[in-house]
Amino acid sequence: MKWLKAAVDEIVSGAKKAIEEMDEKQVESMIQMILEAKDKKIFVVGMGRSGFVGRAFALRLMNLGFNVYFLGETITPAAGKDDLVIAISGTGMTKLVVSATSVAKEVGARVIAVTSYKDSQLGQLADQLVLVRGRTRTGWPREEDYLSRQILGEREPLSPLGSIFENNCMVFLDGLIVELMYRMKMNENDLKMRHATIE
Amino acid sequence: MKWLKAAVDEIVSGAKKAIEEMDEKQVESMIQMILEAKDKKIFVVGMGRSGFVGRAFALRLMNLGFNVYFLGETITPAAGKDDLVIAISGTGMTKLVVSATSVAKEVGARVIAVTSYKDSQLGQLADQLVLVRGRTRTGWPREEDYLSRQILGEREPLSPLGSIFENNCMVFLDGLIVELMYRMKMNENDLKMRHATIE
Amino acid sequence: MKWLKAAVDEIVSGAKKAIEEMDEKQVESMIQMILEAKDKKIFVVGMGRSGFVGRAFALRLMNLGFNVYFLGETITPAAGKDDLVIAISGTGMTKLVVSATSVAKEVGARVIAVTSYKDSQLGQLADQLVLVRGRTRTGWPREEDYLSRQILGEREPLSPLGSIFENNCMVFLDGLIVELMYRMKMNENDLKMRHATIE
Amino acid sequence: MKWLKAAVDEIVSGAKKAIEEMDEKQVESMIQMILEAKDKKIFVVGMGRSGFVGRAFALRLMNLGFNVYFLGETITPAAGKDDLVIAISGTGMTKLVVSATSVAKEVGARVIAVTSYKDSQLGQLADQLVLVRGRTRTGWPREEDYLSRQILGEREPLSPLGSIFENNCMVFLDGLIVELMYRMKMNENDLKMRHATIE
Repeated sequence: MKWLKAAVDEIVSGAKKAIEEMDEKQVESMIQMILEAKDKKIFVVGMGRSGFVGRAFALRLMNLGFNVYFLGETITPAAGKDDLVIAISGTGMTKLVVSATSVAKEVGARVIAVTSYKDSQLGQLADQLVLVRGRTRTGWPREEDYLSRQILGEREPLSPLGSIFENNCMVFLDGLIVELMYRMKMNENDLKMRHATIE
Repeated sequence: MKWLKAAVDEIVSGAKKAIEEMDEKQVESMIQMILEAKDKKIFVVGMGRSGFVGRAFALRLMNLGFNVYFLGETITPAAGKDDLVIAISGTGMTKLVVSATSVAKEVGARVIAVTSYKDSQLGQLADQLVLVRGRTRTGWPREEDYLSRQILGEREPLSPLGSIFENNCMVFLDGLIVELMYRMKMNENDLKMRHATIE
Repeated sequence: MKWLKAAVDEIVSGAKKAIEEMDEKQVESMIQMILEAKDKKIFVVGMGRSGFVGRAFALRLMNLGFNVYFLGETITPAAGKDDLVIAISGTGMTKLVVSATSVAKEVGARVIAVTSYKDSQLGQLADQLVLVRGRTRTGWPREEDYLSRQILGEREPLSPLGSIFENNCMVFLDGLIVELMYRMKMNENDLKMRHATIE
Repeated sequence: MKWLKAAVDEIVSGAKKAIEEMDEKQVESMIQMILEAKDKKIFVVGMGRSGFVGRAFALRLMNLGFNVYFLGETITPAAGKDDLVIAISGTGMTKLVVSATSVAKEVGARVIAVTSYKDSQLGQLADQLVLVRGRTRTGWPREEDYLSRQILGEREPLSPLGSIFENNCMVFLDGLIVELMYRMKMNENDLKMRHATIE
C-alpha cells in the first residue's frame, strides 16, 4: 500500500500548503460577497469532479440559510442584478462554466472565480478571483467543453496531481463554511432551534 | 377546466398528427442504426425537457439490452468509431448538444438528430435526420447555451405549443421501443426469463 | 413499422381517454392547492420515469413563478406547515415516495398523490388523491424500493402498457400548466415582461 | 479568518490521522475485491455528500477501465453474481443504502462497506468492512431515509466535525485510485495511449 500512503501524504500536505498560500484578501472578499448575497440568490457552477465539490458546498450554504442553486440541476431560477455566481474550474477554461458566468455578468450578477489560473478566461471575467492552486495544464485539455470531453474520454491525470485541485477546494470550502457560521453568529444550537420550529 | 381540456386536445391530436407525418424512411433508418449498434455504445443527449425525454428513452434502450449512456451523467465512457449518438433538440441549436455531437463525429461515431429543423446545425451535421415537428422558433431562444439560458431564465412558451416537441418525442420514442422489441424478437416473457437468470 | 404505429395509437388514444375519465373534482382541488401554495414551497417527488415527468412539471411550475423543488436533487430545503408535496407514483407503492410523503405529512405539509391506485399507501395518506389510470400491477413490482429495483433490474413492461402511466401524466400535467397560466391571468406577454425586468 | 484556518487544520490533520489508523488488511482486501471485479460490474452507492464523494470515485474507477455505475443515476443495469457493490455511509444507517446493499447480497453480489460504524446495519451485512472514522452519531439522525431527511431539513453538523467523514473518504479513495493504478501496472502514458487508439 505504499502508493496509497504516498498519495495520501501528497494530497494532505498539498492541501495544507495550498490553503496556507491562499491570498487572505481574496478569501476575505469572497466571504464579504457571500454575506452580502444573504437576501439574493447564489448560484454555484462547476463540471465533473469540480461539480461534485461545488454541490457539496452549495448544500452547506443552503444549511446556513442562503438561497442557493447549483447550475444545471432541474430547478434553477433566472439570475438578476447583484445575485452571486461562484464558479469553480481548475483550468478556468471549462467552456460551459465560462459562458454561463459571462452571461451572468451581463445581467448584473457578481462573479467569484475559484481557479488555479488568474489569466484564464474565467479568472479574467470574474469580479473576484480566488486562486486555489492544484490544477496543472500540461497540454491538457484539448477540448474545453465538458460533454465533448466525455465523448473524447478526456480527463485529468489519475495521479494525486490530477485530483489535487478538487481536494484543495473541498478542504478550503468546508473551512469557509465554518468561518461563515461564526461570522453569522450561528452555532450548532441556533441551527438546531431553527430546525425545531420547522418541526 | 376548459383550458386544460383544450390543451390536452391540442397535445394529443398534435402528437397523433406529428407522428403520422414523420418520414418512414427516416424512422426505418434510425431503427437500423440502433440495431446495428447492438455491440457498440449508444449515447443519448439532450438538455432541459428534451433531456428528461431522452433519459426515459435511454432507460428503455437499456431494458432492451443496449449498452447505453446519457451524456452528462457521472458515468459516461469515451465514444469511438461506429458508436451511436442520438441527439434530441427541437431547435437543433442547443450549443452543448451541437458541440458534443460534432466531436462525436470527429471520433467516427454515427449521429442521429431528432429535431424540428433539418437546416439547423444539428440537422446538418447528423448522419441521419429524424424530423419531429413541434418546436417553433419565434424569436427564441436568443441564447443557445443551456446553462446560460438557465441564468437568463429563458424557456419555451408555457402554452401547449411550447411543450409539444417533447410530447411528440416521448410518444414517438415509446412507440419506437415497442417496434425495436418486436424486431429483436423479444417479448415480455423472454425479458422476464432474462431477468430470472440474474436472480 | 406497424408496431410503432399501433403503439403510438394506443398511447395517444389511451392518454385522451385517461384524461377524459379523470375526476374533475380531484383536478379542481389539485389546482386550488397549487394556487394556495403560491407563497409556500412546493416539492415534487417521483422515481425513474415518473421522476422525469415530475422534473418536467416542476420546471414548468418554476416558470409560472412557484417556489418549487424536486426531491432528491442537491438543493432541497426543509418542508414546513402548509407547504405542498406533489407525489407521482403509478403503483402508489414506491417506498421512497411513500416514506418521504409520510414524513412531509408529519411536519404539516399537504400532499397530492398522482397515482393509478387510490387504495395504495400513497393514495391513503394523501390529502388529495388525483387518479390517473395507466399503471397495472400484474405481479409487479416485487420490490418497492427504487435503488433495490435498479439492483434487481426490475422495470415496467416495455409494451405501451408499461409506459402509459407516465405518458398520461405528462399530457395531464402539461395541460394543467396551461390551466394554471390562465387562472393566474398570466399570458405569454406578461411572462416575457417579467423576464425583461430581470434582464 | 481564524475559524477557517482552525477548521482547515482540523480537517487536514484529521484526514492524515484517520487514514494512518485504517486497518491495512481491510484496505488490502478492498483492493483485491476491486481488482477481481475487473470483468464484472461495480456499483457505487451513497447519498448526499457521501454520494458526491462516491461519484468522484466512480468517475476515477471508470478512468481505470472498470465497468462502473453509480446507483440512482438514469442508467444502472441489474446486478448479478460476483458483481461488486461499494457502499459509502458514515453512520452505516442510511436506509436506501442499506436496503439496496441488502438486495445486492441476495442476488449474489459482494459488498464493501465504507463506514465509521462496524456495528451498523451496513457494517453487519457487508462482506468486507472498511472503517473510515469521522462520522459521529450524537443523537443524529433521527430519520434514516435520505428523502425524508431532506423534507425534515436534517443534516450533519456544519462544524468541521460534520464534514470530516466525507473529507477522509475523498482523500482515502483518491489515494486508493493511485494504488490501483500501480497495481494494474498502468501509468499515465499507458492511459494516454489507450485514449489515442480511441481517437
